[in-house]
Amino acid sequence: MAKGTYVEPTFERDTNYITTRILRDGSEGWPVEPGRYRLVVSRACPWASRAVIVRRLLGLEDVISMGVCGPTHDSDSWTFDLDPDGLDPVLRIPRIKDAYLRRDPDYPRGITVPAMVDVPTGQVVTNDFDRMTRDFVSEWTQFHRAGAPDLYPEALREEMEPVMRRIYTEVNNGVYRCGFAGTQEAYDAAYERLFTALDWLEQRLTGRRYLLGDTITLADVRLFTTLVRFDPVYHGHFKCNRGKLIELPALWGYARDLFQTPGFGDTVDFTHIKRHYYIVHSDINPTGVVPLGPDLAGWLTPHGREALGGNAFGAGTAPGAIAEGERVDPAHNPAVGPDGLVHV
Amino acid sequence: MAKGTYVEPTFERDTNYITTRILRDGSEGWPVEPGRYRLVVSRACPWASRAVIVRRLLGLEDVISMGVCGPTHDSDSWTFDLDPDGLDPVLRIPRIKDAYLRRDPDYPRGITVPAMVDVPTGQVVTNDFDRMTRDFVSEWTQFHRAGAPDLYPEALREEMEPVMRRIYTEVNNGVYRCGFAGTQEAYDAAYERLFTALDWLEQRLTGRRYLLGDTITLADVRLFTTLVRFDPVYHGHFKCNRGKLIELPALWGYARDLFQTPGFGDTVDFTHIKRHYYIVHSDINPTGVVPLGPDLAGWLTPHGREALGGNAFGAGTAPGAIAEGERVDPAHNPAVGPDGLVHV
Repeated sequence: MAKGTYVEPTFERDTNYITTRILRDGSEGWPVEPGRYRLVVSRACPWASRAVIVRRLLGLEDVISMGVCGPTHDSDSWTFDLDPDGLDPVLRIPRIKDAYLRRDPDYPRGITVPAMVDVPTGQVVTNDFDRMTRDFVSEWTQFHRAGAPDLYPEALREEMEPVMRRIYTEVNNGVYRCGFAGTQEAYDAAYERLFTALDWLEQRLTGRRYLLGDTITLADVRLFTTLVRFDPVYHGHFKCNRGKLIELPALWGYARDLFQTPGFGDTVDFTHIKRHYYIVHSDINPTGVVPLGPDLAGWLTPHGREALGGNAFGAGTAPGAIAEGERVDPAHNPAVGPDGLVHV
Repeated sequence: MAKGTYVEPTFERDTNYITTRILRDGSEGWPVEPGRYRLVVSRACPWASRAVIVRRLLGLEDVISMGVCGPTHDSDSWTFDLDPDGLDPVLRIPRIKDAYLRRDPDYPRGITVPAMVDVPTGQVVTNDFDRMTRDFVSEWTQFHRAGAPDLYPEALREEMEPVMRRIYTEVNNGVYRCGFAGTQEAYDAAYERLFTALDWLEQRLTGRRYLLGDTITLADVRLFTTLVRFDPVYHGHFKCNRGKLIELPALWGYARDLFQTPGFGDTVDFTHIKRHYYIVHSDINPTGVVPLGPDLAGWLTPHGREALGGNAFGAGTAPGAIAEGERVDPAHNPAVGPDGLVHV
């Protein structure tokens, strides 16, 4: 998502998003329409990665294209520095900020990813990361691939919402609260909150395969994006260091189980993740040196979670091939092969 | 030891020490004499901790007194801020720098611990940490306690020296080379050197209880002081993060074995260790926030190293009680009791 906002003494996230929705009925001006929108992300960003994973799980790649920003944005904007000429090949702009300014020439808030951009006008329609994936599920249904999982099952919603809320405030945001704490007191409080939540999740996941039971849901996507960054970044850089993820057996098994599931690990770019945090947060890491660790080989080890039963996709199926232009560089993720898929 | 010296691009340690020796024959002006010298240390500092451990293993507490500086020295000097009136009770000075200036009013080099101070004149005699513990062994022999181990056995010296040298350059200093690297290239090279050495030690310690075989020697003291700081500080703060110490089974078992041996764990102040590095190195950690982790409970778990045979003190015995004034605060080390001893 956003560039970090440092507020003394306790970190608070800027949650003023452009909340326009892309709806089937087009009632907010931007109707669901295949080929019309471009999802702009960075693979470094956990909030954008949520959208990347859901798009692939649902098979929306052919109807919503994707532009990928480089991991090390400057103070101004995430940029398309990975593209050979420094321009997004579809939007023909060097910075995602340009699409925000197309929407509002005086756009006053954070330039964040993920952003859904209307290709014909070049305007950002929404950067509301929470609503965005919910709408991928509920508004784009007719374009889901055959076998797409139901990530927000009617019968589970009442149980899901507080789980997702707690994961957001205590875990997704909790790691930032530790890392951006401006005082020892703020950090100490943030650390206690974070590990209280991780202990809750460790317990919850000891007896069940996924957060809501036998199949994956949006809640799992949300937790995964933080867990996959935990040992490479949050443990050291954000001082979330009671222990590594690998020291929590259920969570570590669960994280590997998801990582090895098509749609999760095959979207992860560890190099972008590490470069982003260690280079962009110069207030925390003034040298800009990016650690070489941790050893990532463990992500491919057997997780043993099959014993809990369940099946990621329920009555559905796993997503298949990844288009050539969307594969993670195998040098950036030891688990992916040249075809971009995770090979255990 | 020293305050870190930042040299671009690769960290190099200032090794210009006052090399005067305290000898039995007094040939350098300062003879071995019980009650005459004060060992000034910080429990934060690995180089000083080496002297603290050897002094206790040999039972020299009654003949060489000890002054303890606080963990967070300023740019000027380590200070006696832990003492109620801010003065060392024997030397009656607020800073160890004052004893350096007593030796040489124009003293031009680093103000470091450990330092041996001549109490009658208030002068630093030596701050040569390497020579200091060797001389505790060879020059103070007549004052060793009954049952003191032979930390530098004649028969092992030829094998010991290259092991100790490699531990010094690759491990004790290797972690600093990672943490103080001024460029990515310097860090990358330092990381490879460090973990190459740790892999060598992991292999060496897989088949033998201690570095030189069946009993502890100076080599073990030297390795221990780095290992005990590895997960609390070097892994995160110095980016020595291929993995934690707990991920190297032989080294982690070995480190716990020593920690649980009288003279090792009972000298360790984890609070001083963490406060020192995270607060003093403001170039690396500008916020000064000290991490709450890692969980230290693992240090007391069974290490299983008895199966390798051997016995820390050989024909000798373990050191006994710790004088009240020299006990580590139980709030700073979860393993020590009110008597200052480690209780497994």
